[in-house]
Amino acid sequence: MIRTLTSKAAAQLDRDLMSTGAFSIDQLMELAGLAVAQAIYKQYPPTESNAADSLLVLVGPGNNGGDGLVASRHLKLWGYNPILYYPKKSTKNELYKNLLTQLKDLGIAEIDDIFKFLTSKDSHPRLILDCLFGFSFKPPIRSPFDEVLEFLSSHSQALPPIVSVDIPSGWDVDSGPIEECPNIDPRMLISLTAPKPCSEKFVGDGKVHYLGGRFINSKIAKQYGIEKIVKLYKGDEMVVKLG
Amino acid sequence: MIRTLTSKAAAQLDRDLMSTGAFSIDQLMELAGLAVAQAIYKQYPPTESNAADSLLVLVGPGNNGGDGLVASRHLKLWGYNPILYYPKKSTKNELYKNLLTQLKDLGIAEIDDIFKFLTSKDSHPRLILDCLFGFSFKPPIRSPFDEVLEFLSSHSQALPPIVSVDIPSGWDVDSGPIEECPNIDPRMLISLTAPKPCSEKFVGDGKVHYLGGRFINSKIAKQYGIEKIVKLYKGDEMVVKLG
Repeated sequence: MIRTLTSKAAAQLDRDLMSTGAFSIDQLMELAGLAVAQAIYKQYPPTESNAADSLLVLVGPGNNGGDGLVASRHLKLWGYNPILYYPKKSTKNELYKNLLTQLKDLGIAEIDDIFKFLTSKDSHPRLILDCLFGFSFKPPIRSPFDEVLEFLSSHSQALPPIVSVDIPSGWDVDSGPIEECPNIDPRMLISLTAPKPCSEKFVGDGKVHYLGGRFINSKIAKQYGIEKIVKLYKGDEMVVKLG
Repeated sequence: MIRTLTSKAAAQLDRDLMSTGAFSIDQLMELAGLAVAQAIYKQYPPTESNAADSLLVLVGPGNNGGDGLVASRHLKLWGYNPILYYPKKSTKNELYKNLLTQLKDLGIAEIDDIFKFLTSKDSHPRLILDCLFGFSFKPPIRSPFDEVLEFLSSHSQALPPIVSVDIPSGWDVDSGPIEECPNIDPRMLISLTAPKPCSEKFVGDGKVHYLGGRFINSKIAKQYGIEKIVKLYKGDEMVVKLG
């Protein structure tokens, strides 16, 4: 049984990293996003045909979305074709604006109508990368994300596999799927820093679980009881497959 | 023949990345330092004995030094034992101060007397990582770096292999070794973004050349004539061995 980090502990660890730990959000997001990209590369390596490797990236309004923007940049450089759905852009946060500029410069496209995109005969993304909400998620889900998650939840059989970053969006960080939120069912979960308690409900045939975010020193690991987790990485790998 | 970037072009490309390219120095340094660490991991994978994997990291006062600080963090997490020689610390630059805090939190040690260290019977670093000067280097070399490079140059037979980041420190970026500077002779060179012209003088048996810094979009690559170079990377690798 792997030790998990509750929503409260994860938030405190994040604050510690950026205060006493002296990490900047730019650094942490770069390493987290790179880990997300590498986990996808390992599990779904690119095919010969670029068209087959289009990934629909659902970008939320906060740091989980930022991780998705960074991951999209690396994935594009590695031969994938990420397509962004990013309906609620921050107008104030310079980092997110800059990450988006980096993606535009790489020729990464953006869509406005996700429902049209996912029901079109012409667009068949290989994966949906769910970077909507992370460890600080609290319901209710605001528009338009409520409808997006409702759609993903009710059309799961017809849609490409979903890869969720940190938590499956709409799940309670600590308890898992909740009644009042659409219950999305990802194929793959990429936990960042350490799995959150809801990952214990992420079970079933064909489910794949990765861990990324290799930047925790032994003092912080001890303080948060995750010494064993941070020792799971091998060699110079930035991600490790947990199951 | 690989296209190189002159000191002038490299400086302009760096400015472009951080202005129109919308990259922050934190991001670029994280990716550059990670590439340096991965090149070392590929060429000198860790041994079973941690003691044998001590690396003396020579940290210069600018961005080349910053790349070395980031590389040291990753290398420590991967099982190496980096030891810093960082005699001219910036008191104003928050990023360098923060990177140093991150290293202290990992228990990375620092030495003051490099001559004593390198001549002691007890300290036998496996490698010397030269992160003193990068593409913006102009002679003369200020104290204490003049004496350090003089020592490395005149004791090269007795010292562990030197791995230089971006350029061999003390070399002219465009023309190579220069008369008025001590001529250090690295075993390995890790070029960042693209090789600099002086790398054409980096030749000989057993010399190893890597490229890192995979963050250039095709528009910038075309503008600087390095389209072929940025296509050398394979898969999700952040570095590529050039020779």
